[in-house]
Amino acid sequence: MITIGPEQIASLPLLRESVGAIRDAYISVTDGRAQLPPVGYLGFPDRNADCHVKFGYIQGDPIFVVKMSSGFYDNPKRGLPSNNGIMIAVSAETGEVVAILDDRGLLTEVRTAVGGAIATLALARPDAEVVGVVGAGTQARAQIRALAAIAGKVFEFVVWGRNGKAASELARNLLAEGVVVGVTADLETLCGRADIIITTTPSAQALVLSEWVGAGTHITAVGADAPGKQELAVSLVARAGRLVADLVEQSVNHGEFSHAHASLQIEVGRIADLGSVLAGAVEGRSSAEEITIADLTGLAVQDIAIARVALHQLGVC
Amino acid sequence: MITIGPEQIASLPLLRESVGAIRDAYISVTDGRAQLPPVGYLGFPDRNADCHVKFGYIQGDPIFVVKMSSGFYDNPKRGLPSNNGIMIAVSAETGEVVAILDDRGLLTEVRTAVGGAIATLALARPDAEVVGVVGAGTQARAQIRALAAIAGKVFEFVVWGRNGKAASELARNLLAEGVVVGVTADLETLCGRADIIITTTPSAQALVLSEWVGAGTHITAVGADAPGKQELAVSLVARAGRLVADLVEQSVNHGEFSHAHASLQIEVGRIADLGSVLAGAVEGRSSAEEITIADLTGLAVQDIAIARVALHQLGVC
Repeated sequence: MITIGPEQIASLPLLRESVGAIRDAYISVTDGRAQLPPVGYLGFPDRNADCHVKFGYIQGDPIFVVKMSSGFYDNPKRGLPSNNGIMIAVSAETGEVVAILDDRGLLTEVRTAVGGAIATLALARPDAEVVGVVGAGTQARAQIRALAAIAGKVFEFVVWGRNGKAASELARNLLAEGVVVGVTADLETLCGRADIIITTTPSAQALVLSEWVGAGTHITAVGADAPGKQELAVSLVARAGRLVADLVEQSVNHGEFSHAHASLQIEVGRIADLGSVLAGAVEGRSSAEEITIADLTGLAVQDIAIARVALHQLGVC
Repeated sequence: MITIGPEQIASLPLLRESVGAIRDAYISVTDGRAQLPPVGYLGFPDRNADCHVKFGYIQGDPIFVVKMSSGFYDNPKRGLPSNNGIMIAVSAETGEVVAILDDRGLLTEVRTAVGGAIATLALARPDAEVVGVVGAGTQARAQIRALAAIAGKVFEFVVWGRNGKAASELARNLLAEGVVVGVTADLETLCGRADIIITTTPSAQALVLSEWVGAGTHITAVGADAPGKQELAVSLVARAGRLVADLVEQSVNHGEFSHAHASLQIEVGRIADLGSVLAGAVEGRSSAEEITIADLTGLAVQDIAIARVALHQLGVC
């Protein structure tokens, strides 16, 4: 067993090289190769905190992964990051622990961003140019980085954040990496201009309203991953022509689509699996006018995929 | 984050010092302090293997624990142990990983044995003398060690194993530690003589028959922890006056009591929680003639308890 620390993980060229593995991970969920038990949950309401335990196995893989990720949302008051995480990679041949990936949540950040970019590119109009990013936190930055890295074209990125300073800082940081990002304080106008909207906030109420969103827009929603979180108006979800989720039952249980589903605005049958769209088994976008929405709550198979790529790059397995 | 290896863990005086913590862990399940989500499971049928993920939290504790334990039952053919495991101790204050306990299953072995000894001492007749141990593997040895260490009296231990050589070796090893253990090849006679029977095998069919067991016997069954495993005849379970489980739903789902429950020989209402018995809220043994059975499938709160004791002994927290 070896332990791999955060600096070592941060130095790996994961973005581009994990795309194939994460694409395949989504497909594995829909073609019967994946074992994906329900996500485990511990809540610490008196500490404004929670913990998720994700684990799964893709048939044929040399490893499986157990991941702990925690969100202690009062940590910033003490100068600590809210999110922590660790992955255990276990040999699927012997059950021995192969590696501890002490990534502090970095691998989750990257696999979430790459998953978002894959969904965005699969569902947006081919002529899409303007990408509006809602939120200016870690995941906003990660989504922009991933999309810029793997799109094969140059998008115009514009960020809106509740905290204007954070948005400016994000733009400054990304510019240093060679990615040009604009900043706006006007979310309504941003949504109207955008061909692609990516929502990345932990909001508890809808930020993006249906009347702001034009025909043909694609939306990738990654923020809502727990009961009570919501970024899109229910009427916007109901209006979309194509709804896609990484895992339909997670999405209607505690993801973005849970609100439209609970209020009987959409039926489960309207939501397609992202893996089926990627595999070509189900149509993605059907016209240039259609609104498409991908709701991503995150899957253990993505963790397996990124861990496998990281361990391969490190020469471990 | 620190990593604590198997040698360091093996050197700790855990047996006696974890009794109070594990007792309290059982009680925490019944008095509302414990969060104990369902056990996660991955199966590898083509490899004769499985993996369990246990996690939970006891209110007020400084840490919570996520544990991965694997059983790859063809490993011995390659000269490897069947069981592996690792525990992650996470701060319940900040969500940061405090320690990786790379125990290879040792902490599970000890907490299972201490739990067995606690249940045995709570339910056996005070004048019990002869302890019949069914099975001669790692957990048989651990149960004897734990009971000998914490009983406060000297029992007569006799071991039966399907493999006579393994039983003799177990007796030799324990003698070297100062614990006298007899060996028998006659399970029926052993069950007739024993005041306490401890079953520790991965058997898939009943080994202990009702007609072999005398009035007043206490049985602690720790082997059956997954669907299909069984050590006691259904008629024996049905005949017992007092049935106790560490967690009733686990026991009737995949523990020893699942067979009697599935065949409608017992009702769930007949099974008491071990924690309630330990807390004095429910009566344990009601007479010297009663047969009592404790079925233990293992709880994440035991993992928390033993991890907490180990980390305390190591000066970590």
